[in-house]
Parts: sequence; C-alpha cells; structure tokens
Amino acid sequence: MSGGIRVIHYGLGAIGSQIARLVLSREGMRSVAAIDIDEGKAGRDLGRVIGLDRPLDIPVSKTLASALEGREAEVVLHSTDSFLEKVIPQLREVISAGLNIVSTCEELAYPAAQHPKLAVEIDTLAKERGVTVLGTGVNPGFIMDTLPLVITGVCQEVHRIHVWRRVDAGRRRLSLQRKAGAGLTRAQFQEGVKARRVGHIGLRESVALIAGALGWELEAIEESLEPVIAERPMRTQFLEVGAGQVAGVHQIGRGIKDGQEVITLDLEICVGLEGARDTISVEGRPSIKLTMEGVHGDIATAAMVVNAIPRVVDAPPGLVTMADLPLVQAGLDRSPLSL
Amino acid sequence: MSGGIRVIHYGLGAIGSQIARLVLSREGMRSVAAIDIDEGKAGRDLGRVIGLDRPLDIPVSKTLASALEGREAEVVLHSTDSFLEKVIPQLREVISAGLNIVSTCEELAYPAAQHPKLAVEIDTLAKERGVTVLGTGVNPGFIMDTLPLVITGVCQEVHRIHVWRRVDAGRRRLSLQRKAGAGLTRAQFQEGVKARRVGHIGLRESVALIAGALGWELEAIEESLEPVIAERPMRTQFLEVGAGQVAGVHQIGRGIKDGQEVITLDLEICVGLEGARDTISVEGRPSIKLTMEGVHGDIATAAMVVNAIPRVVDAPPGLVTMADLPLVQAGLDRSPLSL
Repeated sequence: MSGGIRVIHYGLGAIGSQIARLVLSREGMRSVAAIDIDEGKAGRDLGRVIGLDRPLDIPVSKTLASALEGREAEVVLHSTDSFLEKVIPQLREVISAGLNIVSTCEELAYPAAQHPKLAVEIDTLAKERGVTVLGTGVNPGFIMDTLPLVITGVCQEVHRIHVWRRVDAGRRRLSLQRKAGAGLTRAQFQEGVKARRVGHIGLRESVALIAGALGWELEAIEESLEPVIAERPMRTQFLEVGAGQVAGVHQIGRGIKDGQEVITLDLEICVGLEGARDTISVEGRPSIKLTMEGVHGDIATAAMVVNAIPRVVDAPPGLVTMADLPLVQAGLDRSPLSL
Repeated sequence: MSGGIRVIHYGLGAIGSQIARLVLSREGMRSVAAIDIDEGKAGRDLGRVIGLDRPLDIPVSKTLASALEGREAEVVLHSTDSFLEKVIPQLREVISAGLNIVSTCEELAYPAAQHPKLAVEIDTLAKERGVTVLGTGVNPGFIMDTLPLVITGVCQEVHRIHVWRRVDAGRRRLSLQRKAGAGLTRAQFQEGVKARRVGHIGLRESVALIAGALGWELEAIEESLEPVIAERPMRTQFLEVGAGQVAGVHQIGRGIKDGQEVITLDLEICVGLEGARDTISVEGRPSIKLTMEGVHGDIATAAMVVNAIPRVVDAPPGLVTMADLPLVQAGLDRSPLSL
C-alpha cells in the first residue's frame, strides 16, 4: 500500500464493496478514503464494511468533506445510484473537489441520452476543474455498447447492430433478482416499474452511445419492458417464484434512423433462464456474429471500473464515454505498455 | 472530395487498393496522392490502378518526394510488406516528411517483439517530427491481440489467453492461398517457409502485444509452423491441391511466463477448411469464452486501417499500438461523438 493511484470509494453497496476489494488486490492503486451515507456503515472501518476479516485503518466517512480531511487522492469510484438526477449533487461535489470519477451510475454512461443539460454541465465543470468523468460497468459500458462498437472496427460499412443479453438472475445477488421483478405478481411488477425499482437502467444510454459513436442521427430511441412469467415454480438462494408469477424482465431498446430500426438491444434477466449468453450481430460489410459466455455482471462491473482507473486518470479533462478512452483492459495498473 | 483528412496511399497491392477504394467512400477523408514502386502502376491514374472505371485525377508516383510535390497531407496509409526491416527505409522517409502512418506491415503492430532497436528509432523519430505511427490490420491488430485484450476489461484477474483462428483460404485471394502454402509439396512448403514466402507473419507480435498490455513479462515467445496435408484433392478459384499436398498452414505462437504457457495463439489457414471462425478463451476471474464468425481478413484489414485514421491523426506523437488508441470503430470519419 505504498505508491500508486490514490482511490476514494463513494458508495459501499454490493458493487462498491466488490470494487473496494478489487482495488486492494491491485499493485498500482490504493484506497485512501471511503464514503457511505448509510448510518450502519459510516464510522466503521472500510475493511469490515466490505467484508474483510481485518481492518484497513480507513474509517468510512459520511461526507466527502470529512473523507478528504488531511488526505489527497486522484480518483473517486462512485457507486451509489442508477439515476443521474439522484447522483448529480454527489458528482458536482466530487468534481468541484478536483477529483476524477469512475461511476457505475448507469445514466452516466451516456448522459446526453436523457439528460443533455446535465451532460453539458458535467462536461463544463469537469473541464474547469481539470478532471475526467466516466460512467461505465458491464451494461451499460461494455456488452451492449462498447463491445459492439469494437467489432465494427473490422467493418467497412455498418447497417444495423443487434445485441441479445440473456442473464440467469437465479445465480445473482438478491438485489438483481428484485430488480428483475422475480417473485412479484404482474400487478406488483407494474408498480415496481412505475416506481423504477424494477427494470434494467441504461438501455437508452447504450443505444445512444452506439449511435453517437457511429455518427448515426436517430430520430427516436424506444424502449419496451415486459415481465417474463414463470411457467413452473422456482426457487433461488434468496426467494421463491410461483408458477404464474414474474420470473424476470424482458427489455428492448431500439434506435430508429430513417424509419429503420438500426439498433436493437434485447435484454432478458430471469430466474431459471437457461443458455445465459451474450450475442452480438453487426450487419454490414462484412456481417459479423459473436457469442460470448461467462461475463458475470457484478464481477464484470467491478472489473471495468477498476480497469478503467488508469485510463481515466490519464485522459484529457471532461465528461468521457467508453468510446473515448484507449482500451480498458486488465493489467493497466501493473506496468505501462513499453515499446 | 472537399474537406476532411488528406490521405496518401503507399502501396497499391490487393490490400492497398482495397484501402484506397474504402477511403473514397468515406466522408471525412480524401485521397490526395499515391505511391507504388511497381513500374506497371507508377504513372497511371490511381482510379484505374485500384480497379475503378473512372480516373481520380491522382497520378501514382514512384517516390514519396514526387507524390508530395505541391501537395499536403495528414496521413500515409502504408501497405507494402510484412517485414519491418524491408519497410523501415519507407517509414523513415514518411516520418521525416512529417506524416502520420497507418501501416499493414505485420511486424509494425508491435515492433518491440522482434526489432526493439527499430521500435525505439521509430518512436524517437516520430516524436521528433510530431507524428504518430501505427501498425494494424485484422491479424495482427485485432482478432488475436486487441479483441482478447478488450475482453479482459471485464475480468478482475487474467491467468491465460487462448485464441484459435480458423480461416478458409479457399475463399480468399490467390496470394493468401500461396502464403498458406496451398498446392505445394511438403518439400516446397519447407523451402517457402525458409524463404519467408509461406506462413502468417505477426504471431510473435500479437503474443508480445498481449503480454505488454497485460504487464506480463514473458521469458520466451515460441512459434511452431506445420503444413496441413490435404486428404482429398481440392480446387479453388485459383489453384488445385492434390491429395497428399499441402492444403494450408497451422501456426501456433506461445507466450511463456514463469514456466507456464499463458498465451496461446493458434492459427490455421487452409483450403477446404470447414467451420471457419475465431474463438477466444480468457481464463481468469471470470473465465470468458467468445466465438465469432464473419471476419473476412482482407475486408477487415482495410477497414481497420481506414477506421484507425481519425484516431491516429488525433493521437499524441510516437509509435503506438492498438492498445494505446481509443476505440477504433466504424463511423469515426463522420461525426465526433457529441456529449
């Protein structure tokens, strides 16, 4: 824990804690402070809060100001909420303190999609303060936007992009199962959607990120969200789903250009789903089809955030997306690529 | 053909010509000059040389100096040879003229692998002249190095990378079939390998690029190269392969670290090969497996070169690799990503 990039953890939920544990294992970075508004976490030692069996001598603070007392850092790893309007006061505070941000806030992956004014504000403030702000994760941030864009690198023309992501929620933590609506009645599911407790956040951002990077001007981004109904009773480590109850969620984001659906992002997160995998189809010259197995959402999101740190610290100031950064890959903390 | 990045074509073989045709279709760039040492091409119009049915009013020059007379440009698209020692005089001349380079020279994808002194020379000269130099293509440049690295972005740990590329040479141009040794006897194959006419160039570069980017210090890079023998007679558009003759080539590049084979790049280029596809396995936390179909080598190499142009023009000076650049994707010439 001597040198390296100094990191502050902002938000110590399931993902934030996993991020903090991963930072501990990396040579080129170290945790110097942590923040969580949860009364049950603030005041305790970071090591205990993230589930280690030893203290890290870093008290979890309730505010950024107290976390920064007597400490310096380069980057804040931010993992508190999915919605930009909820986290914007936190982002403003962090940027104003002159700290770079890597955030799992889904709407920050491409904030221009739904909050163009906030996107401009973040970009302007970040440039004023000389820091870089990135929203990333497995999705949005990788499977349904960055990876399809990477594939287009070997295409002379691209006409249409279609991505299918199939996630077995039964093998994931309870909060993801809840987000998928597993175990709810149809009526409870609709209530949950209305209250934005149920459903994946970020499809619109992924559609807009692809379109923006490809230079496609979309006339519309559409989104549908339906429950997937269990045909037989199922049980996970955390909950039960009766036959006829909701097993999960099926969401589709669509990007429309010149009357054609040129981007389709089709996501199913379900308990009991078989054949979990990701499939990407790029129609163009040439047409390419890719299937991928093994990308575990939580592990992947924590990995993306931590792997992105060196790139974000090195990037020019402003609001950036995954499409603006050099390759985010494992190993960046260890040694720079020597030529 | 009004604004945009001004491009010079250096080398108008099969790939160079395809690159030139692709540049013509892109809004954000235009061809201003062309060079080929071939007596049959120099002096003729670029449009005719690359197979268009119309002239482009750009004469193909024999030298860079005459190509540059009265013209300015930002980038040279270089496609003349696979070996760094052969192209280094050309690269020196282009860099000295203050022009960025995107080259299909396989050994330039990661020149430190086999020519560390030349790598330093290119980097130093490029920085002096304020230009950026990139070697790229489908392989090396994408399938067996960049794409596996992209996948590691969602990994917390990476232990081993294994890539299989299976190419049906029967559907490709004659020169690739020749490079694969198709139709040769075993003895002719071995002669061809010795003379470096037969075999894929770039495996060592891909192994070294992966290792360099992941911060892995390899104690050895090994390479094997064997003929694949035809069991039955086969015929392509260009040549015949008798039973018992060579159908293609099977090459494996291996990266050894701490006594373990941590990188395996397994390439088969064969006439009559069935199930052409690319497979990437990243063993780590988590382990990820990806399969991809449809990446046609020539189309992909031309695409990578042209798609990389805006990134190379914007990059800081020096010798760079695909791992240093922001996403190389389609559409970069059209409109910058607006936030």
